Amino acid sequence: MSKGTLLYAQSGGVTAVINATASAVIQAARGRKVKVLAARNGILGALREDLVDTSKESPAAIRALAHTPGGAFGSCRYKLKSLEEDQPKYQRLLDVFDAHDVRWFLYNGGNDSADTALKLSQMAAATGYPLTCIGVPKTVDNDLVVTDCCPGFGSAAKYTAVSVAEAALDVAAMADTSTKVFVYEVMGRHAGWLAAAAGLAATGKDAAPQVILFPEVAYDEAKFLARVQEVVKKVGWCVVVVSEGIRHPDGRFVADAGGGKDAFGHSQLGGVGPLLAATVKDKLGLKVHWTVPDYLQRSARHLASKTDLEHAMAVGQAAVDYALEGRNGVMPVIVRTSHKPYRWKVEAAPVARIANREKTMPKGFIDRSGYGITAACRQYLEPLVRGEAPPPYRPDGLPDYVRLKLTTVAKKLPAYG
Amino acid sequence: MSKGTLLYAQSGGVTAVINATASAVIQAARGRKVKVLAARNGILGALREDLVDTSKESPAAIRALAHTPGGAFGSCRYKLKSLEEDQPKYQRLLDVFDAHDVRWFLYNGGNDSADTALKLSQMAAATGYPLTCIGVPKTVDNDLVVTDCCPGFGSAAKYTAVSVAEAALDVAAMADTSTKVFVYEVMGRHAGWLAAAAGLAATGKDAAPQVILFPEVAYDEAKFLARVQEVVKKVGWCVVVVSEGIRHPDGRFVADAGGGKDAFGHSQLGGVGPLLAATVKDKLGLKVHWTVPDYLQRSARHLASKTDLEHAMAVGQAAVDYALEGRNGVMPVIVRTSHKPYRWKVEAAPVARIANREKTMPKGFIDRSGYGITAACRQYLEPLVRGEAPPPYRPDGLPDYVRLKLTTVAKKLPAYG
Repeated sequence: MSKGTLLYAQSGGVTAVINATASAVIQAARGRKVKVLAARNGILGALREDLVDTSKESPAAIRALAHTPGGAFGSCRYKLKSLEEDQPKYQRLLDVFDAHDVRWFLYNGGNDSADTALKLSQMAAATGYPLTCIGVPKTVDNDLVVTDCCPGFGSAAKYTAVSVAEAALDVAAMADTSTKVFVYEVMGRHAGWLAAAAGLAATGKDAAPQVILFPEVAYDEAKFLARVQEVVKKVGWCVVVVSEGIRHPDGRFVADAGGGKDAFGHSQLGGVGPLLAATVKDKLGLKVHWTVPDYLQRSARHLASKTDLEHAMAVGQAAVDYALEGRNGVMPVIVRTSHKPYRWKVEAAPVARIANREKTMPKGFIDRSGYGITAACRQYLEPLVRGEAPPPYRPDGLPDYVRLKLTTVAKKLPAYG
Repeated sequence: MSKGTLLYAQSGGVTAVINATASAVIQAARGRKVKVLAARNGILGALREDLVDTSKESPAAIRALAHTPGGAFGSCRYKLKSLEEDQPKYQRLLDVFDAHDVRWFLYNGGNDSADTALKLSQMAAATGYPLTCIGVPKTVDNDLVVTDCCPGFGSAAKYTAVSVAEAALDVAAMADTSTKVFVYEVMGRHAGWLAAAAGLAATGKDAAPQVILFPEVAYDEAKFLARVQEVVKKVGWCVVVVSEGIRHPDGRFVADAGGGKDAFGHSQLGGVGPLLAATVKDKLGLKVHWTVPDYLQRSARHLASKTDLEHAMAVGQAAVDYALEGRNGVMPVIVRTSHKPYRWKVEAAPVARIANREKTMPKGFIDRSGYGITAACRQYLEPLVRGEAPPPYRPDGLPDYVRLKLTTVAKKLPAYG
């Protein structure tokens, strides 16, 4: 039996498959007879010494985690500052780790979490505390560098492509006397990956979505309206997919016309969809409907991509392997070795190369019009939404999602803060 | 071989399974060796003599219709006035029917379409034209009287319950540092059936949605805010489901604060979700996210209810039987013969009893708080969302929805209008 405890935590916006990663981590660790604690609400649970004993969960419950969306242990939006600025917090983390014999820390999140894993590993090294920190990738935004894609993205991408395809059939049926333009708002503050995924629905000539607005392309209202009008004239109706993060040429978010700021000073996005819909209605006089799926797009485990689920499980398994091998400060990333047939493997990459960076869409993925995706983009995206992995359903028609017991570990230290 | 042609048309907002009804109609008629034409864009196609020859579609394509959302022949929002006011239009319809030897007309829609079917049957009787008119039920709003439920509703209900359950897991994971209140807007201008369906997700104590706002219950802002605050205090977060049609005590739509009117003078709804979210944010100071699924909730064939699909096919089959039996002016309706085990059958009901009426939620389906559903409501709803009927998927990860050839029949009459 390995000495020490493995601590797992979830960070940032959750996904349809982050619990699949958790499931793989716990199953892999159990296979190696390593005890796994989970921090409640990410790194905050570690600071507060609010830890869950995963050994109290049955094997069936841990397997069921793999088909349950959300973040079973709670997540957080909380970023530690530099080692100098937040020195007491990093010290507190090491105190908590020491109190519970934590020798391996797996932080499952995006680029902020990679940064936290990196700093913690540096702090531990500086103080001589024996700790191996692993960043485990997750984000529907698909904006982590180095990795070919991010677990969580493929399922959100599949949800987006399928939902756009379905809504387009509805709009096509109604257009003669009713809705002519449908606006679909997707997540993605700085990167257009989910907007691009909608493009997978457009498999035929003039197929929806006919207009995609990417955050990587400056929004030009006149050009946009002309394009919508042209499509309506030709096809009879038009589906517009808009990323929440589109900006005016001067860099201001288009959504800011109607929005405010959140607690962190970020622009409060979500709302550019209805804004564009109103623009189309007022300027073109066309009947418009709009949707903002919001959290539905990242929690729709019922429509998960099988590829994505396999990625999510694989990075969890690899994270445990790397941890126990003492590969401090790395992240398991997805490496694509072949497009057709799609082949991939997991490799370790230094979190220092990933932390605090953002991968936007390459220029070659957006077509010349600026409103669609290229064949190269399709080649990249398509394997990621491939395959279905539905959850089991209960007799009452709802998915059989698991609710863990979440048994809290007795505290050994004074209360935090 | 029966003499004459059967004309099928789709009307009003489409659903995830209206094409399943079309599929059943065409298959049943083929089985009886009856020729089926379909009007493009509902009754408008009949007026315009814009007809599709369904015999040009392969058996596989017609079978695939049963798993394809939208309205394959196009639908319309178009209501004929009284026989006196619109006499020339009714005469034109009979002229078109006569030109194409139409002896049976199946109109697949809601209460407006039942009205059209009724009037056409009266007009035909008055003029001696041999025509049998059948209304075929369809609406996600579930607001038709007489029938136990409406094909289309069960799938939208399942989509709503599953999406709310999934989003709630997301909110629960984020609430510690981020979103505390999630607002989910459902369709339903006058009837809270889809709002009620969200209640199916609430299977445990304090489970989401903790607050449902029905159009049947006058909106009381102070009481609503107090309830949300109470839930957040107890649970840590709160999911609110709001029907687009909620009203102030004086009858004004709450959504009208931010909306306008559509071409028919109806209030342009959709937007009460973000409005409530802003109210919660401003009055309670809580971080809020919101979603408006809009057309996604009625086109999500990927998450159809098996029961609903069976209803949709059964009314299509029965409509053909009734038509060929000459049962003029009836509608096949769903009759529930047992709750547990759920048993049902199809019977013929006079469209005159159904046209232009609306079924709202019975008082006994909304609990005393006004924010939840009762056990009786759950007993009614649950069988309707039971069972899964996923579409086949293509190798690229998207559903394999069919696109018909839609071969137009040669016109025999002068152009319309």
